[in-house]
Amino acid sequence: MTIAPVACLDQVPTLVEPRIRDLLGRLDPRNGRVAAYHLGYCDADGAPSAAGGKGIRPALALLSARAAGQSPERGVDAAVAVELAHNFSLLHDDVMDQDTLRRHRPTAWAVFGPAAAILAGDALMLLAHDALADESRPGGAKAARRLATDVHRLIAGQAADLDFERRDDVSLDECLAMSADKTAALMSCACALGALLCGAPAAVTRGLSRFGEHLGMSFQLVDDQLGIWGEPGRTGKPVGSDLRARKKSVPIVHALTSGTAAGEALRALYASARELDEADLVLAGRLLEESGSRDWVQGEADRHLIRGLDELAALELPAGVYDDLFGLARLVTGRDH
Amino acid sequence: MTIAPVACLDQVPTLVEPRIRDLLGRLDPRNGRVAAYHLGYCDADGAPSAAGGKGIRPALALLSARAAGQSPERGVDAAVAVELAHNFSLLHDDVMDQDTLRRHRPTAWAVFGPAAAILAGDALMLLAHDALADESRPGGAKAARRLATDVHRLIAGQAADLDFERRDDVSLDECLAMSADKTAALMSCACALGALLCGAPAAVTRGLSRFGEHLGMSFQLVDDQLGIWGEPGRTGKPVGSDLRARKKSVPIVHALTSGTAAGEALRALYASARELDEADLVLAGRLLEESGSRDWVQGEADRHLIRGLDELAALELPAGVYDDLFGLARLVTGRDH
Repeated sequence: MTIAPVACLDQVPTLVEPRIRDLLGRLDPRNGRVAAYHLGYCDADGAPSAAGGKGIRPALALLSARAAGQSPERGVDAAVAVELAHNFSLLHDDVMDQDTLRRHRPTAWAVFGPAAAILAGDALMLLAHDALADESRPGGAKAARRLATDVHRLIAGQAADLDFERRDDVSLDECLAMSADKTAALMSCACALGALLCGAPAAVTRGLSRFGEHLGMSFQLVDDQLGIWGEPGRTGKPVGSDLRARKKSVPIVHALTSGTAAGEALRALYASARELDEADLVLAGRLLEESGSRDWVQGEADRHLIRGLDELAALELPAGVYDDLFGLARLVTGRDH
Repeated sequence: MTIAPVACLDQVPTLVEPRIRDLLGRLDPRNGRVAAYHLGYCDADGAPSAAGGKGIRPALALLSARAAGQSPERGVDAAVAVELAHNFSLLHDDVMDQDTLRRHRPTAWAVFGPAAAILAGDALMLLAHDALADESRPGGAKAARRLATDVHRLIAGQAADLDFERRDDVSLDECLAMSADKTAALMSCACALGALLCGAPAAVTRGLSRFGEHLGMSFQLVDDQLGIWGEPGRTGKPVGSDLRARKKSVPIVHALTSGTAAGEALRALYASARELDEADLVLAGRLLEESGSRDWVQGEADRHLIRGLDELAALELPAGVYDDLFGLARLVTGRDH
């Protein structure tokens, strides 16, 4: 099997970015500049740069159109909508979490202030809707509803995530549901939306949707591990950042609810009022390994990836589409090296 | 002419609120509670209350359907969409402006934190779209596009408003354009959206739209005066709050660009680094009167109201609709007492 994730990712700058830049041109210049900075199209002074994300979600949306037997061009509006919705949520999340770094650069609110970042996020959410509203194809209304549903899930997931920081009785099931809402919903949306826009049969969009949901869970579980054990070169975030912020990510909640001595020791560490120092972070990482949480999370990430691929394999996809989706799935879940 | 604004406002709690409560029920309970608090449906503990706004915009949307010769019930989705979009913007504006009081109650972010208020705002914006997406009538797509266009203007207006706080070279034209975007756009949307949903002729929706734009300008100019000279009983905000925050509202920019000695004295006061005390606020109010700005703004507010009513009078409206719109216009512009 040939794995060529780069080939389908390469279509994002050529097919999707120009359309996003067009849409940014509709915005008030102030909001447009903050959005362009956040998307990596320019630096803080407005000078052109190329510091954007990998474009995983738009690449999935283009492949979704191909999965429905259409050209990737037919998935462009879906790709644009998903990418804008994703970046709306990043802009707002960074304000809410007071994160100062993303993709190795200062976050938009850190550069332009929280108000400007909130407004730019609002504007991107509207543009995401606009991208599908321009759509006169029969699948347009369905696609718009699907996007709205998944953005509602995204917002609910973020609300749960913030709520968990204040609670010490979060169950593993709650935590997994939060991850599904916060991350898997929009990834599932990306995988289904291109096919939906093309009016694909329900069985195809359902299979793609399930693939995306599993892929999103696998991605989030891997990301949760990276939030604890690094690597900053990959994430652009410092090692231990989730622990330092006392986040209740899945590995942490798994340990806290494991009934093990290591889990109880982690609970005591989390309950202390003081700021966690480097030694605490090393200790917390070790407790998570001793409680079996690191292995369990890795196992769940693998299981979701395999179940997602099973969903794909059950579909009769046009030549090359399975391979490209498989390649992207490897990339997303850190199995590409 | 009989002026009975109360009669058409009374339809908001019976026709519009139940549908909004339905939609809130779709949200994650955390976001739903913050939104319900903000809308005045409950207090901070979740106990029922009745502390909502007057419902001007939804009442206008119901009247918009009646202007198109339909029952107010046909305008409910428009009323819901406009009211939710308005409250989305209030939730975010209060965070951005760090305002702690609205409608005589602590703002949502002051009670639940900025993150919760940002998320609840995001959720209301999505619900506003949902309200129109459920719409299978021929005017549904047009109405959704109109709402999106006006919310883009709203966001652009807020971006301009924030930008003005950091600038000392704001022109009167820029300031009037900001007010049009920030306030008149959504009021115009309310006046047109019910008719749009009902598939009214373009001449009718255009006339209603222009009426709403003038009404919105008149309302904003009156509101700008209240932000300087009170009355807190009416606004729920302290006297002089706009001056204290060194806002660049229309009366202030008019004075600063008036070329009068009073205008220059106001500029010096605004340029000082220290916090403005009560004596400063009294002085600023006097300087605004001396520069002629108070009279000019009142004149502009009157002119917009009259031009708006002229637009209405040019339409052949069903019996009673002009009177109700006139009554609401008097209420909105403070001419009801």
